[in-house]
Amino acid sequence: MRILDLIAKKRDGGEHTDEELRFLVEDYTRGDIPDYQMSAWLMAVVWRGLTGSETFALTGAMAGSGDTLDLSSLPGTPVDKHSTGGVGDKTTLAVVPILASAGVPVAKMSGRGLGHTGGTLDKLESVPGVRVNLTGAEVLAQVHQIGACLCAQTTRLVPADRKLYALRDATATVESLPLIAASIMSKKLACGAPAIVLDVKFGGGAFMKTVEDARALADLMTRIGRAHGRRVAAVLSAMDAPLGRAVGNALEVQEVIGLLQDPAEADGRLSALVRHLSAVAFLLSGRVGTLEEGAALADAQVASGAATQKWREIVEAQGGQPDRTLPTAPAQVSVSAAADGYITGIDAEAIGLAAMRLGAGRATQEDKIDPAAGIIFHKSVGDAVGVGETLATLYADTESRTRAVTQAVVAAFQFAAQPSPRQSPIYDTLGLDS
Amino acid sequence: MRILDLIAKKRDGGEHTDEELRFLVEDYTRGDIPDYQMSAWLMAVVWRGLTGSETFALTGAMAGSGDTLDLSSLPGTPVDKHSTGGVGDKTTLAVVPILASAGVPVAKMSGRGLGHTGGTLDKLESVPGVRVNLTGAEVLAQVHQIGACLCAQTTRLVPADRKLYALRDATATVESLPLIAASIMSKKLACGAPAIVLDVKFGGGAFMKTVEDARALADLMTRIGRAHGRRVAAVLSAMDAPLGRAVGNALEVQEVIGLLQDPAEADGRLSALVRHLSAVAFLLSGRVGTLEEGAALADAQVASGAATQKWREIVEAQGGQPDRTLPTAPAQVSVSAAADGYITGIDAEAIGLAAMRLGAGRATQEDKIDPAAGIIFHKSVGDAVGVGETLATLYADTESRTRAVTQAVVAAFQFAAQPSPRQSPIYDTLGLDS
Repeated sequence: MRILDLIAKKRDGGEHTDEELRFLVEDYTRGDIPDYQMSAWLMAVVWRGLTGSETFALTGAMAGSGDTLDLSSLPGTPVDKHSTGGVGDKTTLAVVPILASAGVPVAKMSGRGLGHTGGTLDKLESVPGVRVNLTGAEVLAQVHQIGACLCAQTTRLVPADRKLYALRDATATVESLPLIAASIMSKKLACGAPAIVLDVKFGGGAFMKTVEDARALADLMTRIGRAHGRRVAAVLSAMDAPLGRAVGNALEVQEVIGLLQDPAEADGRLSALVRHLSAVAFLLSGRVGTLEEGAALADAQVASGAATQKWREIVEAQGGQPDRTLPTAPAQVSVSAAADGYITGIDAEAIGLAAMRLGAGRATQEDKIDPAAGIIFHKSVGDAVGVGETLATLYADTESRTRAVTQAVVAAFQFAAQPSPRQSPIYDTLGLDS
Repeated sequence: MRILDLIAKKRDGGEHTDEELRFLVEDYTRGDIPDYQMSAWLMAVVWRGLTGSETFALTGAMAGSGDTLDLSSLPGTPVDKHSTGGVGDKTTLAVVPILASAGVPVAKMSGRGLGHTGGTLDKLESVPGVRVNLTGAEVLAQVHQIGACLCAQTTRLVPADRKLYALRDATATVESLPLIAASIMSKKLACGAPAIVLDVKFGGGAFMKTVEDARALADLMTRIGRAHGRRVAAVLSAMDAPLGRAVGNALEVQEVIGLLQDPAEADGRLSALVRHLSAVAFLLSGRVGTLEEGAALADAQVASGAATQKWREIVEAQGGQPDRTLPTAPAQVSVSAAADGYITGIDAEAIGLAAMRLGAGRATQEDKIDPAAGIIFHKSVGDAVGVGETLATLYADTESRTRAVTQAVVAAFQFAAQPSPRQSPIYDTLGLDS
């Protein structure tokens, strides 16, 4: 088999065999196929696409390119969760303790944030002492002991994806539905959970701008998982406005702790999405028989304090101190409304970029993060606002940093004379009818 | 300007500016753009194509990527010639002396053969002592002195093309009309001739399989040349059967020497194409006013012996000995007809591959060539053949080598009970009406 022939085959619109895709992935990962040939193949894929069966085989080959986690020794049905990323999306930090506290094991490996979206690892690391780099053996041991972990993907998992993603990023071949789906699902397959809940976000603050694109990605990822024998469900959720009241690492952890302790006081859209994702996970794992039972179980785990207790156990198991104060920002500056009216929207991407400039995110992979930086919203979409009322507070290491984004944050708010209806962030759920 | 943005622009079907293409070519040639980004751009070009204006700018940037020849000090209008390559195509070796003997200067730089097509340099090197690696200064001096040279492209000319071609060859991005045209024409532009005759071949033994593809390439190359202020004409010629009676390096040189000495005895299709290419070149250079005058001038240069004399001068100027015997093959084996009939075709590609296996060509760029190896045809398309009559003689270093291709050579002949009409190899000529 020659890579040159495979490039030509895809260039001409042909369909690869499973064996060809395994050859491509294995030889590329080993370094036997050079980057300049792989990037030509990737551009041919952006052009010609991949069939379902090609996508399933590519994902499988990528998943098998390194170590894989074997979760079969865990009790019950372990569940994994993945979000395609958004602004203020801290659902993983809440859902994992809820699931684990009810006996559903979760070996959750997360990524870091880049650009306007945050990453679960960065958020978790704002908790003093928490260690996120666990070995495969440590992951298994911790999940056996307390039912969950929240950690970084080990470098030995799915090396093909790491190498391919870096190449796609440098060759304008990121934007291909099958390549995006294969990248995400290869990691989920390698992490070994038999049940997977996907949170596919759409809107201005998400990677997928339209609900149609999000549905297509969700559908393809669901089919990939099933082709590899996994139970998969996908929630389509709106990322038009930031999720919850906090954007920024320690600020979001604080919001999660508050949500688990007193959900009635939490942001309604955030708690609705946390409850729904938990319910879908409970249903997929077989822990409950209906979505309603799943939602009730999630509520119960929170109300009893079991979820909070599980959060503390996870933090402690990973070396953190749950009772230590989270980092706080020396500069805190409020921004206020210039007129009366109703908030009809908050531009999530603009807020994500503002938070990044405050120090909460990375413009490049080398940037350092300020765990205390970010934004707290005092008003949400649908709220009435009077002139001079505080809309948000900006947190950073210096006042000049906050001042640099004040205008952008104010401009992210859209106002109208009449309120628009408050909308649920949950648009649809795929994969529960099978 | 960022290469990543240019890849994305072409991927999305955008049109590059002249400046963007200059940036691409210059930075890639300098090594500032890595192969893996350029190959993604190349595949996007195979997909989206290039507009005329993009193709003109790309070709110009490539032509300017290294040294260029300045022929302005030569008398008259220098002419260049290029053939897209075929089996038995030795026209350059005849046309250059014909033109130079009539006072039209030709600084001809040629390539080597690969696969089933031969290369002019390999043919010329079968003449004992001939040196083909001349410097730019040597080229100019020789053309000033005797009106012509036949040499290799110096490595300092069009480095962008050498680098791009090697990358295209390794990434299945060769087959793109604008990239093919830009590659050929960048070399012609850099070689400095104000008038250029292109021989674009089509058929089984050529790179372009159909006359439509050949016409599209010829048309695009003609427009590129004109956009850069050159006079360009393109002959579309058939490469369904090998051109002339000889295939193989010394055998083809011998055929050219015979053609120049006694054209009446030469293969009719070969002499017709040599006369036509010469006539077109004479017309483009302004040496004659009509194609008919050009053909008559070509005939006169051959009949007077001036063309033969010029051939000897070129060989001597480059260190060769025109009176020394050309290399001859120790093994010579004839193949005969198995039945009576008329030859209706000779598969040029099959013959080219058989000649390569005899030692006359290269399967890979590292292969050594046997200058004496090849095939002589004793019968042509249209001839009647009786059973047992000799069709061809195979030349190689051992008999076992000839035996290995006997079957393939016999199978390349197509027979019928009735003769098919003999056809001119000249299908059309573009660019003379302007």
